[in-house]
Amino acid sequence: MKSAIASHEDTIVALATPQGTGAIGVIRLSGKEAISICNQVFRGKDLSSQPSHTIHFGTIRDGDKVLDEVLVSIFIAPKSFTRENVVEISCHGSNYIIRQVIQLLVRKGARLARPGEFTQRAFLHGQFDLAQAEAIADLIAADSEAAHKAALDQMRGGFSQEISRLRDKLIHFASMIELELDFGEEDVEFASRDELKTLVTELKTVVSALIASFDLGNVIKNGVPTVIAGKPNAGKSTLLNALLNEEKAIVSDIPGTTRDFIEDEINIEGITFRFIDTAGLRDTTDKIEAIGVERTQEKMKQASLIIYMIDLSTAHVTEVGQEINRLENLGIPFIAVGNKLDRVTEDQLAQFKDFKLCYLSALNKENLENLRQKILAIVQLDTFKTGHTVVTNLRHYESLLKTKQALDDVLNGISREATNDFLALDIRGALHHLGEITGDITTDDLLANIFSRFCIGK
Amino acid sequence: MKSAIASHEDTIVALATPQGTGAIGVIRLSGKEAISICNQVFRGKDLSSQPSHTIHFGTIRDGDKVLDEVLVSIFIAPKSFTRENVVEISCHGSNYIIRQVIQLLVRKGARLARPGEFTQRAFLHGQFDLAQAEAIADLIAADSEAAHKAALDQMRGGFSQEISRLRDKLIHFASMIELELDFGEEDVEFASRDELKTLVTELKTVVSALIASFDLGNVIKNGVPTVIAGKPNAGKSTLLNALLNEEKAIVSDIPGTTRDFIEDEINIEGITFRFIDTAGLRDTTDKIEAIGVERTQEKMKQASLIIYMIDLSTAHVTEVGQEINRLENLGIPFIAVGNKLDRVTEDQLAQFKDFKLCYLSALNKENLENLRQKILAIVQLDTFKTGHTVVTNLRHYESLLKTKQALDDVLNGISREATNDFLALDIRGALHHLGEITGDITTDDLLANIFSRFCIGK
Repeated sequence: MKSAIASHEDTIVALATPQGTGAIGVIRLSGKEAISICNQVFRGKDLSSQPSHTIHFGTIRDGDKVLDEVLVSIFIAPKSFTRENVVEISCHGSNYIIRQVIQLLVRKGARLARPGEFTQRAFLHGQFDLAQAEAIADLIAADSEAAHKAALDQMRGGFSQEISRLRDKLIHFASMIELELDFGEEDVEFASRDELKTLVTELKTVVSALIASFDLGNVIKNGVPTVIAGKPNAGKSTLLNALLNEEKAIVSDIPGTTRDFIEDEINIEGITFRFIDTAGLRDTTDKIEAIGVERTQEKMKQASLIIYMIDLSTAHVTEVGQEINRLENLGIPFIAVGNKLDRVTEDQLAQFKDFKLCYLSALNKENLENLRQKILAIVQLDTFKTGHTVVTNLRHYESLLKTKQALDDVLNGISREATNDFLALDIRGALHHLGEITGDITTDDLLANIFSRFCIGK
Repeated sequence: MKSAIASHEDTIVALATPQGTGAIGVIRLSGKEAISICNQVFRGKDLSSQPSHTIHFGTIRDGDKVLDEVLVSIFIAPKSFTRENVVEISCHGSNYIIRQVIQLLVRKGARLARPGEFTQRAFLHGQFDLAQAEAIADLIAADSEAAHKAALDQMRGGFSQEISRLRDKLIHFASMIELELDFGEEDVEFASRDELKTLVTELKTVVSALIASFDLGNVIKNGVPTVIAGKPNAGKSTLLNALLNEEKAIVSDIPGTTRDFIEDEINIEGITFRFIDTAGLRDTTDKIEAIGVERTQEKMKQASLIIYMIDLSTAHVTEVGQEINRLENLGIPFIAVGNKLDRVTEDQLAQFKDFKLCYLSALNKENLENLRQKILAIVQLDTFKTGHTVVTNLRHYESLLKTKQALDDVLNGISREATNDFLALDIRGALHHLGEITGDITTDDLLANIFSRFCIGK
């Protein structure tokens, strides 16, 4: 089915680089007529006789009118991103020129690409599976080292390969069991139930590990929702600013980053921590009166991490004990910070020795590294760092959950010696859900839904 | 001097496509080490042995860590934009990836490019003259057909060639006259004064025509400042909206235009008309009480075109006569519009027959085309349309004015039979100012000033 689509496709065109003014903008054409359509408006070498992966200087002309001097890159099917003929036109980065050139190409027979249509074509022509295609969108959106690594791993194969391998084995069993069905009453057994059980158990282990990785995957993709709480004047704003400023200092030597507008995200060793605004977190006239205030409690429940600030210079031991008790009861990972190390006497400090606070001075940026290490320890990156695959996509997660359910059904069926038709049905169920991840099983709706989330030109 | 710089240059790097998220982003390297620096981080074919104008698939790696799958385009000096070795890396369009790749290339020996540094190198290596280099920035900024055409003409040679040709001739005369100086008292004449006069007159004609084109050039580049004036309820807002809506209808089928936020610019046959906000121009409770109001008068004086609206259904003949008189006294081109054709009787209409109004109904969008043609007639595009060169750059304009002054001095010198040394001085003056335009005469300050206005990556 996949290859059959290729020959009927029309040729699509879109701007592949971001909107806006820059030195260059790249317009991408893909389809059987990509080279011939470009050739109609290109004055330079005859593009139809050029080898793949070559670049040609010339002008784009609308009749006699020169629109721009350009470089045209030629990719001949199947050696291209979409596995179709692809032409990339590198123009001067003016909105006016790009508009004119795209309009001209449309007049010459190209069609404006829908969002994600280039990637969709690459998928349909077998360039990669669906999970890999989805990873491209994640890769483009990735704004931290961990999110980038997870997306790139997935784009380059990731768990797709392992799932495909196990799925192929399962398909073999499914066929054998269905073959048994054909023999009806004869009571033959082509598929060893023991081997099937071993395979399904193996598959379930893989699937369970992937399911377990989703929490981390979610954190990697969307950041760790974090709340800084504590009494007024405990130093919450000072701490956030101290963390943000160090971050800003780190990124400030990088030209043209777009992070300037992000105020409440901090990146620690590649993981993003997203600070939930607890209404006045950074106000000096702090509205969060105490940890007991209902509204703040609500916010804290959304967090995956709470940093609780205690002003060592004014806190009372019994009260701190109560506050830490309350935090423990919330059941959310927290770090109790003893702040204002700069304003506290030895005696004051001694009172809190039983609480295992993270001591620091937000004002003087003292011991911040200690806090950072504690924060990282809570996120438990070990799994990720050792190179295990992480699921970051909600769609994959849901399919994995359904797969696991179907695999459990198969195992149950084997142990209660279910009839072949029931077993076959459950195996087909597992195959279906696994296939949804890699795109071996797709519907038009599913594809439309996935690719419409891409940007145009991808 | 120009070629000598090449061998000493370091290798520069920058993002060449606009900031933001897109399908791809292109990072550009230029300099002797461009290919070898990229080769250090590229896993794929050995880039150092690839021919110019070829494209190679592979990965960018920071040690063992894969940063991205990329396409690398190779341009070998002098067959590149800068006439140096150039590498373009086409990455996935993620800010994170682009930042990482640029940082990596900097660690491997590249330097972040200054704004316009790629174009500056192209200029220094003789790829084009200074006026052409400046036209590239104009080309990128061009947002109308006329501005685009003017910039492209200039980039592709424009008046540079004609100026260079005449300048070369003038240099010849200057040398001859300076040779005469060497012979001191001997009263020889190597340079025919008649021929010199003819050449200088020819040059002056060219220079004068270019100077004259600057008004039009300015209009093309920056738009025609336009005011719609008239009494309250004369239909000013309705007219502007009618013009804007038609414009929006025209551009709405173009994907991803950034014009959405531009509310008060209209493009008529490639010329931009920029509407000056006369404080409440589009308010229904219009603050412009009448043309006599001082504040509106001030605004009108900034305009190159006034569209004066008259409500035919309520206007009195004598008053209209007075208003048109006032407009004529302003000395700014104006169009008197008789509006509300939909609400006027034959008799009412007949009163105004002496005024040559442009009759229309803004509400019903009736006769708008008539108004558009009148507007175009005022801008006088004929010069431009017939392909004459237009000066759009203030720096060029100023140098042309100085050139003309120097040429006048030469002509005066000839007619009053000035001594050779005076003549030579004036000719050198003209040569200097002409050379400033094309960049044959430059200073570091001038270059820095020009190229700093470019975007980074160009």
